[in-house]
Amino acid sequence: MQALILEHAGKLAIRDINIEQTLGRDDVKIAMRNVGVCGSDVHYYKHGAIGPFIVREPMVLGHEASGIVTAVGDNVTHLQPGDRVCMEPGIPDLKSRATLEGKYNLDPAVSFWATPPIHGCLMPEVVHPANFTFKLPDNVSFAEGALIEPLATGMQAADKARIRPGDVAVVIGAGTIGMLTAIAALAGGCSRVIIADLVQEKLDIAARYDAVTAVNIARDNLAESVASLTDGWGAQVVFEASGSPKAYANLFDLACPGGCVVLVGMPPQPVTLDIVAMQAKEIRIESVFRYANQFPRALALLGSGKLDIKPMISGVFPFEQGIEAFERAARAEPSDVKVQISFE
Amino acid sequence: MQALILEHAGKLAIRDINIEQTLGRDDVKIAMRNVGVCGSDVHYYKHGAIGPFIVREPMVLGHEASGIVTAVGDNVTHLQPGDRVCMEPGIPDLKSRATLEGKYNLDPAVSFWATPPIHGCLMPEVVHPANFTFKLPDNVSFAEGALIEPLATGMQAADKARIRPGDVAVVIGAGTIGMLTAIAALAGGCSRVIIADLVQEKLDIAARYDAVTAVNIARDNLAESVASLTDGWGAQVVFEASGSPKAYANLFDLACPGGCVVLVGMPPQPVTLDIVAMQAKEIRIESVFRYANQFPRALALLGSGKLDIKPMISGVFPFEQGIEAFERAARAEPSDVKVQISFE
Amino acid sequence: MQALILEHAGKLAIRDINIEQTLGRDDVKIAMRNVGVCGSDVHYYKHGAIGPFIVREPMVLGHEASGIVTAVGDNVTHLQPGDRVCMEPGIPDLKSRATLEGKYNLDPAVSFWATPPIHGCLMPEVVHPANFTFKLPDNVSFAEGALIEPLATGMQAADKARIRPGDVAVVIGAGTIGMLTAIAALAGGCSRVIIADLVQEKLDIAARYDAVTAVNIARDNLAESVASLTDGWGAQVVFEASGSPKAYANLFDLACPGGCVVLVGMPPQPVTLDIVAMQAKEIRIESVFRYANQFPRALALLGSGKLDIKPMISGVFPFEQGIEAFERAARAEPSDVKVQISFE
Amino acid sequence: MQALILEHAGKLAIRDINIEQTLGRDDVKIAMRNVGVCGSDVHYYKHGAIGPFIVREPMVLGHEASGIVTAVGDNVTHLQPGDRVCMEPGIPDLKSRATLEGKYNLDPAVSFWATPPIHGCLMPEVVHPANFTFKLPDNVSFAEGALIEPLATGMQAADKARIRPGDVAVVIGAGTIGMLTAIAALAGGCSRVIIADLVQEKLDIAARYDAVTAVNIARDNLAESVASLTDGWGAQVVFEASGSPKAYANLFDLACPGGCVVLVGMPPQPVTLDIVAMQAKEIRIESVFRYANQFPRALALLGSGKLDIKPMISGVFPFEQGIEAFERAARAEPSDVKVQISFE
Repeated sequence: MQALILEHAGKLAIRDINIEQTLGRDDVKIAMRNVGVCGSDVHYYKHGAIGPFIVREPMVLGHEASGIVTAVGDNVTHLQPGDRVCMEPGIPDLKSRATLEGKYNLDPAVSFWATPPIHGCLMPEVVHPANFTFKLPDNVSFAEGALIEPLATGMQAADKARIRPGDVAVVIGAGTIGMLTAIAALAGGCSRVIIADLVQEKLDIAARYDAVTAVNIARDNLAESVASLTDGWGAQVVFEASGSPKAYANLFDLACPGGCVVLVGMPPQPVTLDIVAMQAKEIRIESVFRYANQFPRALALLGSGKLDIKPMISGVFPFEQGIEAFERAARAEPSDVKVQISFE
Repeated sequence: MQALILEHAGKLAIRDINIEQTLGRDDVKIAMRNVGVCGSDVHYYKHGAIGPFIVREPMVLGHEASGIVTAVGDNVTHLQPGDRVCMEPGIPDLKSRATLEGKYNLDPAVSFWATPPIHGCLMPEVVHPANFTFKLPDNVSFAEGALIEPLATGMQAADKARIRPGDVAVVIGAGTIGMLTAIAALAGGCSRVIIADLVQEKLDIAARYDAVTAVNIARDNLAESVASLTDGWGAQVVFEASGSPKAYANLFDLACPGGCVVLVGMPPQPVTLDIVAMQAKEIRIESVFRYANQFPRALALLGSGKLDIKPMISGVFPFEQGIEAFERAARAEPSDVKVQISFE
Repeated sequence: MQALILEHAGKLAIRDINIEQTLGRDDVKIAMRNVGVCGSDVHYYKHGAIGPFIVREPMVLGHEASGIVTAVGDNVTHLQPGDRVCMEPGIPDLKSRATLEGKYNLDPAVSFWATPPIHGCLMPEVVHPANFTFKLPDNVSFAEGALIEPLATGMQAADKARIRPGDVAVVIGAGTIGMLTAIAALAGGCSRVIIADLVQEKLDIAARYDAVTAVNIARDNLAESVASLTDGWGAQVVFEASGSPKAYANLFDLACPGGCVVLVGMPPQPVTLDIVAMQAKEIRIESVFRYANQFPRALALLGSGKLDIKPMISGVFPFEQGIEAFERAARAEPSDVKVQISFE
Repeated sequence: MQALILEHAGKLAIRDINIEQTLGRDDVKIAMRNVGVCGSDVHYYKHGAIGPFIVREPMVLGHEASGIVTAVGDNVTHLQPGDRVCMEPGIPDLKSRATLEGKYNLDPAVSFWATPPIHGCLMPEVVHPANFTFKLPDNVSFAEGALIEPLATGMQAADKARIRPGDVAVVIGAGTIGMLTAIAALAGGCSRVIIADLVQEKLDIAARYDAVTAVNIARDNLAESVASLTDGWGAQVVFEASGSPKAYANLFDLACPGGCVVLVGMPPQPVTLDIVAMQAKEIRIESVFRYANQFPRALALLGSGKLDIKPMISGVFPFEQGIEAFERAARAEPSDVKVQISFE
């Protein structure tokens, strides 16, 4: 079976690899269709490691995936061959305390595609647990289906915020996750999202959506924009999705009394926070690690047409040009949100 | 000053009345523009009483209102003459325990327009506390402004439900409140609203909205429709907005495990509930009494264009024809959602 | 292996039965010590069925259990032979949607001891999943360990109430579950629990606890007692633990504005509720079905000495006299809270 | 009227001062009994300012108070002369948005005793709004009554944590607020509180309480103690009550997956936080600014005997020796929790 393989830092290959995959009673077999290139894939490609996760042997990349069911295990009833599906890439230990408490994303024993030493899914066929495989609504394409994984992170952020109907949200950072958080927050109950970035091309894509206000912080003062759009009260929710330590400098100026800050971006080093400023407004901070139980919610919003993620798909490369897809993703072009690879 | 007055049950008049209104330091004076006719206004008109609230003396009707500020008290800074506004009709005792706990709608000492013995606002000019008077966004008309009061009840229902992004909701009853609850729930984060009624004309209005599924329960089985639209899981939220005791018979069949039922409609007599069916799914029931802190949320959603209530305005009568407006509202025509009276 | 078996309605036997139990990799083997007699065990004994669950073949009774680990499967690391433990009797499908959402008690596929056709644990040895087996703190006896299962229902009720520190609670019904709910609510943050029953003997046991006020409703008016103890405001939480439809008549009079009612008792038929009275206070109703993730919480409270359940253990019979234990439990003596059977 | 006055930084006096206090319709007049010396009083004494709040004119100190009602305004019904009471020292603008939303402590217009330019209450008589004056239960002394103000901060922290019954909590810092937070958390539902400090005398006081584990971090590793007491899972709640920036270094190691950190202490400068460590456990951070609606909760817990704050009262000085009281408080003796001044 051909797969897109990270041989070691800096070296990709499309070549044969022998990966044993047995269809268990609770599994499905899936012919792959679209796979998105994630920032983490690119990071492994460039650096060979993310924190404690080090690529020590050749590893198949990819974890944002859609496909078609080709076979189902004996116990599987909700899926059948021919079903168009997307897959949740992290499988927790179902017996763990974290899983039983409904936070399976926090189970340290989770096995996650393309996180060493686990292979990813950039290959023509995978076997996957049926209960982490979800049917796509008819109006959702395979390209959109492969975007649901990063969207699920935005959904987790919107969910953690406990948005109340009509809340105003700020999203700092218009990268892929910031963008998907913004539209999840809008679909999830916000009246308006103010999205901030330094890159005008990204803001232009965000501004295509109704009820989004894009602020270029190279030019405009974000706190003033927020004050002006909220009669000086501040936003009920602030999503930090840039991962930039600078964003933390005046984070609490953006929020209203009793407001919430959700930390989605992962800053490369510890950040400095003004605790007294946080306390003066009794601000709550939530943090996000991937997602739990968000795929069905994302699919419901896509299925009903409330959420449109098509503008997020910037380019789709055939599998044979998968390495070019990685190179384009690695260039991080200002107008790119998501690059994908297709097996069709 | 001319006002629309309920002389006694069954007898309306437009005539002069002398009502003293002094502009206090924290008040504003408002020239009235639109006033909606509420079911409670009609009920007082027909029956002269609602429960313990009995009309014993002539009373001005009306509590759904918009207008223009004409004067402001000395302490008022956020409003000025010329501002287009809507008004929250219930003023609690600000010192009460309920108010300090953020539930001012539950303060028994609340003074509410057109609830005997308090006069309503169907007159050309009112004085009102500035902190219960809200500026209309430029894109919100006076007619829409006068709809915010009933919309606030729908917002309260959506807020109480603690909708999580992508939840599916059922709304039982497509009357004014059911309809406004449905669109509040959609704007407030639901992926889809399934609205049920016996009257096709009302369902046709609801079905104009995206992501609304209208079910005529004269013809179709609601529980089956919900099961089919939720893969058999049930809806995360069920709003009971009909007030019909019959609706309670299989309420819990509609909800998913761990789901929520929000009681908005007011049944005329006690209802029968199957507690064991409720427990088997650990369902939570919330109940709604008017609203607290919902006007700013409703205005934010209208201002950003996420909420469209224009299809709800069925007819606007000039003040001189105010009694005709009441008669039309009293007929409860199947295609009417809201009838208003205008002072322009 | 000898077991206490329900042959059919009305007929118990202690006799040999052949039940195959294989120790899987994630299981433990347990030598049984104490098993409590539950109301449901008695109900099966008397009637042969509970709702749709019908005893069609001889079934071992019992599901409230403690014991000693005698062997562990290969994957088990947190338990070892010799550990004193208690066991959660319901094992859900770990792959189900309800489980992944953290509500495994609502999984319809749960397999629960002594719920036909599943055998219970009134036998000398059982094999059980290790992740539903919990180590007893040193200060917790086997008798107390076998009480944790019903206590977990009280904990679930207290948890659902979302008690805020200092809340006043009312518990209606001083049966086993009412009593355990009362002390769970006290340990769980209430300042005071007002417990109501008709049986003075039960109230006398409850009144042994600090901060419990016992009200005999054969003699005193509960709503007046609550008003007097809460300065007329009402209780923040009302637990209905009697299952008596009569208790529903004035349930909402007991609660404060914005208060919560938790339905723990299971009324034998549908009940009548005054919805408008509920709405006037915007009361929230929660309902309880067994428990999820409560054993560790109950054990933490017992281990630290904050919770004392010893007064709840009314009598312990040796296994050979197990049928006498059932007969005593079936008599429902006023001063009995919990009767147990011991294998020691 | 004699009062304890801060003339300027470093200079206290007990002398006559003329402060006009008119009894309004919603006010009560109170003869002062006990007043606690707060860290903020001492800070003003030593430094003449706290952040933007600068003492520019002589100011009466003190805001932790109990007394006896001597007169009541015309509208006051729940209090009468002779009532033993304690007083909430911060009066918000009741018309503000923060107040209507139930967060009156966050109203920037709050007027707070002994926060310049507002006089405190270290004088024989004060006039105060009746709805911020609370009757003491019979079993609560004046000394305890004057401790309710700082206890209310601990209650606010415990409330914000949303403790679930049986949670384990860590409290970092055994100063007055840390100590009161610890006992509020225990009364509020925790099974155990692990309190950490460098000062053994303070830990000895904390260790008098059941279910408190005191850890001297000069000697022992807190993270290891927490792991050992929680089977390696971590604490559900961590209260930071030291205000020490060092405490932030490994804050997230103490919490369990999905746990909560509550920031009560106010660090003198911004702190450094490891956001990725926070995200890996999806930790939530809450922050506390004084309190809202906590006096009734604190009084309920004291009244029922669930909370014992008597060990916190380290010394009571007669008013004439009030300056000595300040000097002792300023010395911050290791075994002192709270020093008070009495008018009796």
